[in-house]
Amino acid sequence: MTRLYHVPLSPFCRKVRLTLAEKKVEVELVEERYWEQAPEFMRRNPAGKIPILRHDGKVMSESQAICEYLDETIAEPKLMPRDAAGRYEVRRLCAWFDDKFHEEVTSKLVYERVNKKVMKLGYPDSKNVKSGSTRIKYHLDYMAWLLEQRRWLAGNEMTLADFAAAAHLSALDYISDVDWNRSQTVKDWYAKIKSRPSFRSLLADQVPGFPPPAHYADLDF
Amino acid sequence: MTRLYHVPLSPFCRKVRLTLAEKKVEVELVEERYWEQAPEFMRRNPAGKIPILRHDGKVMSESQAICEYLDETIAEPKLMPRDAAGRYEVRRLCAWFDDKFHEEVTSKLVYERVNKKVMKLGYPDSKNVKSGSTRIKYHLDYMAWLLEQRRWLAGNEMTLADFAAAAHLSALDYISDVDWNRSQTVKDWYAKIKSRPSFRSLLADQVPGFPPPAHYADLDF
Repeated sequence: MTRLYHVPLSPFCRKVRLTLAEKKVEVELVEERYWEQAPEFMRRNPAGKIPILRHDGKVMSESQAICEYLDETIAEPKLMPRDAAGRYEVRRLCAWFDDKFHEEVTSKLVYERVNKKVMKLGYPDSKNVKSGSTRIKYHLDYMAWLLEQRRWLAGNEMTLADFAAAAHLSALDYISDVDWNRSQTVKDWYAKIKSRPSFRSLLADQVPGFPPPAHYADLDF
Repeated sequence: MTRLYHVPLSPFCRKVRLTLAEKKVEVELVEERYWEQAPEFMRRNPAGKIPILRHDGKVMSESQAICEYLDETIAEPKLMPRDAAGRYEVRRLCAWFDDKFHEEVTSKLVYERVNKKVMKLGYPDSKNVKSGSTRIKYHLDYMAWLLEQRRWLAGNEMTLADFAAAAHLSALDYISDVDWNRSQTVKDWYAKIKSRPSFRSLLADQVPGFPPPAHYADLDF
């Protein structure tokens, strides 16, 4: 049985969940309060991080390494392009979202507003929240610029880059931090990916103390 | 002509330099004071980061995406294993060093001691330096544990994981922050990789105001 140790709003876990669902791998989700660093969890995972995937008799960490492994070992649907230049672009964009976007936006909004409360680390830092709210605009504009040249973020096929981006944006959308009126192009892209069956599990997430807004699970948002 | 915009002690740039040198790609190195954010550099690179590689008519960013592209497009020597499980392990370890090790060690020592001065950001924060000096011990022990089971970090062949690790350790060694007496296994591994011709360019680096210690370029350290 495949099992994923995760937290609902973690973008890295969401990217893995989308990949597993697209590949039609049945998975048992186990919520892992990793910040409490239970000894049993630390034994499974010396990096002390989520996601952790038990699959194929392995215990795997690092979301990008996990997703590429799933893509290489499960044939359909292909989530990486066939050519080296295409794969470069997917990896560049995954790093863009998981590194730069995460640092500038997700950590400044989701972590400040949700994780801090859940982890009992105090109140959101308003300077961080303001900075995240400003930076997300530039990122949405960059996505719009890419999507005006391509059907999907990294090219004309859906790839891991779309899942990386949608993982972050969906976590932000759960706390109403995405202005979908900023770009019709980005909204159309998100509507397309949000309506996939692989997205359903994300749309059913509930974080105690943080009810999602009505539009979060609405395909016609 | 292949050109790399870099800073000498950046571990991400060093990983790309090692990969280029192993693949025998001749490269022109251009030092890029990216923190001054010259408009010309920002046009080349909206992420505002280094390394940036001009190669194959492309302008490329994100060190891991660059290194995998070089490995996929230049046949010899192969720096990624042929099997999916092997590639997973390489990618996991590259992320380990470029993410966790970077956050806990490199950013706490190289950035505090060197970058802050070069970028005129003030004096090293002694709390960070102390934390980095403590954390590096656990990482060296983890490397020793891996290397007691394998000839190289990710398996029995040299891979990008070794370059990722050596890129960080060599930058730390430039400022004498690696205790090579902690593990003979790790020292032997570093001696092996340090003596490769691809390492020569790194050993010749000079950062104004920070002369390297004598052992830095010594193959018999």
